[in-house]
Parts: sequence; structure tokens; C-alpha cells
Amino acid sequence: MLVLAGMGVHDCMDTSLKAVEACKKADAVYAELYTSRIEDFDRLKGVIGREIKILERSDLEEGAKRLIEEARDRDVVLLVPGDPMVATTHSALRLEAEKAGVRVKVIHGSSIASAICVTGLQFYRFGKTATVSWPLGSRVSRYPVDVIRQNWSVNAHTLLLLDLNPPMRVPDAVDLLFKAGMEDWFAVALSDAGGENEMRCDRLSRLKDFRGEGLHSLAVLARTLHFMEYEYLRVFADAPKELEEIVS
Amino acid sequence: MLVLAGMGVHDCMDTSLKAVEACKKADAVYAELYTSRIEDFDRLKGVIGREIKILERSDLEEGAKRLIEEARDRDVVLLVPGDPMVATTHSALRLEAEKAGVRVKVIHGSSIASAICVTGLQFYRFGKTATVSWPLGSRVSRYPVDVIRQNWSVNAHTLLLLDLNPPMRVPDAVDLLFKAGMEDWFAVALSDAGGENEMRCDRLSRLKDFRGEGLHSLAVLARTLHFMEYEYLRVFADAPKELEEIVS
Repeated sequence: MLVLAGMGVHDCMDTSLKAVEACKKADAVYAELYTSRIEDFDRLKGVIGREIKILERSDLEEGAKRLIEEARDRDVVLLVPGDPMVATTHSALRLEAEKAGVRVKVIHGSSIASAICVTGLQFYRFGKTATVSWPLGSRVSRYPVDVIRQNWSVNAHTLLLLDLNPPMRVPDAVDLLFKAGMEDWFAVALSDAGGENEMRCDRLSRLKDFRGEGLHSLAVLARTLHFMEYEYLRVFADAPKELEEIVS
Repeated sequence: MLVLAGMGVHDCMDTSLKAVEACKKADAVYAELYTSRIEDFDRLKGVIGREIKILERSDLEEGAKRLIEEARDRDVVLLVPGDPMVATTHSALRLEAEKAGVRVKVIHGSSIASAICVTGLQFYRFGKTATVSWPLGSRVSRYPVDVIRQNWSVNAHTLLLLDLNPPMRVPDAVDLLFKAGMEDWFAVALSDAGGENEMRCDRLSRLKDFRGEGLHSLAVLARTLHFMEYEYLRVFADAPKELEEIVS
């Protein structure tokens, strides 16, 4: 059996008891760290009391067959950052394993999918998510801006995940979004989700000096805000008074 | 300090190491079980090795001040199902505590927000989420159907959370959605997310006999499907061949 187990949103202590138990019972434990990152990953070996072999991207893509074959007669755990089902790589792996007759079990983990709501933006009001990627050559993708506009058309917030290779920071993302035709809408910058949770809400142009340790994420606000979202952003994210204009 | 700690999506073993550690160090541990449900909750007392006092809805709403005052000079953990930040009750509590000068720490947990992707529907393609509530008197809310239509307009999937008091099952939700003007779109029924994960994909009208233990959720499909979503639904959710019509 192949177990896909989430390590959660921030550091190794976000791993669930269920995932730790699965690792302890398994014949082999692997981890991939390219779909996201885990702080203090090395400590996890101590927590589960055994070796963890790090897989590269190619091990999971071209090399998936090897992993699946290994799981045919042994219990193999693949630890992944966040929740295993958020990255399409893992659904693809589950599908491939099932087709090869190898059972897959999923153990969920905490994820930026819900952790973004630490900004006070309500879960129900998020629309589609987009990733802001580093440009290939001089071509800046319009995709995130298209998604933001779609979400705006139904008055929804947009979670933007930032490229990890290398880790993109909010100021980089803001530059790219402006190049892709983004207007100066309100957004919340969040760093170190699940850790120190530093955040700031302002117009995009004013988030260009956002610092903060750890991974960065960005949420672009919907056309309007619920009063409680506004209050929360004022208290926790230093939102400007002018944000009041969009409270409905 | 008040710690809001998620217990994760399914059962007590979905609790993170970080939440367990916080419980062990705290002066008092409370739990609320009305925003969702946790299987084998009673076992958690054994895992953390101490008493957990169950709070009622009124303790968290009208009685929030008492909890906040208790957390002023002591370390108090409030365990909640899923991820604490998904339910607006908990953001409201965090805001109220901060205003009263009491620090709040958040420990995330796995949530249906990402666990729904165990259906093979891609996380990036989900739009806004809606709750299907039991009708008040004879009035059936059109809200979930409005959200589904909004999501359809931007070709996004819709996660529908089903009322918990008492727990609504997929067949009940299907009845209510038809009464609210829903058309016979494709959907995936999921039960026991994070546990046995039973699922079935079909037109809504054919999900009326969906059974399955545990909590039920429903995801209404976007106008089109990615080929990998289709393949996955065929393999894991017994989707009909006619679903191929919407693959783009």
C-alpha cells in the first residue's frame, strides 16, 4: 500500500498523529519537498524515529512507476507538504497506482487552502486559486490576473500561491501582477502561514515593501468586504481606513 | 493566551503534534463540536492525557467573554473540528480576544476545504463554497444554487457543505437543491472525508440513493472537466461514461 500523508502547512509539528503512526508502521518513508516547503523538516526524522528519503521531482513524475512497484508488496509512506490532495501531482500518482492495482490511502494535512483565512477573509468568499509563476523569458503570464477578474465578477477573494523555485516574495509577485495588467486593488500579504503569520492589508502598490520570513502568499480582495472582515483586517493586518469604502 | 487548535477533518488522530503539545502544556482544554464533528472524539482525552470540557454554541457566542477572561492569565486551548479559521465563529472570537488585550494563537488542522480534492476535482478549480441548510419552515434558501450559478459563470466547481444540525445527507441536499431551482448537473457525493472516503459521481438526480457512513459533502462540477479529473472520477467515483461530454 502507498500512503500519501500530509505534513501540514508550516513545520514538522503540523504533522498529524495519523501520519506519524503510518510512518512508524511503514516499511519505507519518503518525502517530497518541491510542491511546498516544511520548516525544520529534519526534525521530523527524530519525531518518527526513522530515516526519510527525499524524492526529487523526477522521482515522482518519470519515476512514479518505481515508487508504485515498491508499494505493491510493502507499506510505503510518501510525506508531502500541506495536504496531499492540493497538488495535482499527487492525484496523478494516486490514479496511476490504482490503475496498476496498488492501493493508495490518503492522510490529510493542514493547508494554505484554509490557513489563508487567518487573514480574516472568510473561507466561503474565496473563488478560484491561481499560482503566480516566475516568467519564462520575457513572457509574463496573464493567468493570475484573469483568475482575479473572474473572481471579481462574482465578488470573490482570490488566493494567490507564489512560485517556489526559487521562492517568490510578495514584492516580486506585485511587480509581475502589474506587468500582467493588474489594477491597484486591495490585497493581503501573508508570510509564514501557520507560524508567525505576519500580514498586511493595503493596495497592491503599497505591498511592494512587504517583508517577512518564511513562504509568502497573497490574497486579492473581492469587490466588497463583510464588516467583520474589515474589522479583522484593521486590527490584525494594519489595513488603511480607506478600506472602509468597500465594506458592504 | 487563547490557543485555537484544529482537530482536523475526520477523527482524533487527525490532530497535529502541535495541537497535542499545546493541550499538554495548557492550564485548561475545551472543545466545541458544533461547527463540525470528530469521529471517536472521546479517544482524544486519552491521547492528550487530560480532561476536555465540551462547550456549547452559546458558550462561544454569548459566553465568549468568559472564555477570553479565563485566557487572560492562563493558557487555554479551544479544540475545534477541522481548521479553526474556516468557521467565522472563530475569527470573531479571535477578534474579540485581541480587542480585550488577550493574545490568540492559531494551530491549523486539515479541513474539508482541501480534503474535498480526494474526489479528484482540482483544488485550483473550486470557486466559492456554500452551505445547504435545513429550510426554516417552508422556505428553501436559493443561496446555494445562486453560488453554483456564479461559479458556473467562471467555470468553477462548487463545494457544498451540508447542515449539521441534524446532519444532512446527500439525498436530502439533492431534494433541497432541486426545490431551489437547481438543474440536473453533475456532482460528486463524498462521505466520511478523511476516513473511508466513499464517493460517487453522477447527475444530481441519480445521487438520491447515495448512502455512506459519516458526514456527507457534495461538490457540483464546473461546466467543463480537465481530462485528468474525468479519468480520476471514472476510476474512483464510478462516474458514467456520459461525463466525457464535458471534458475540454
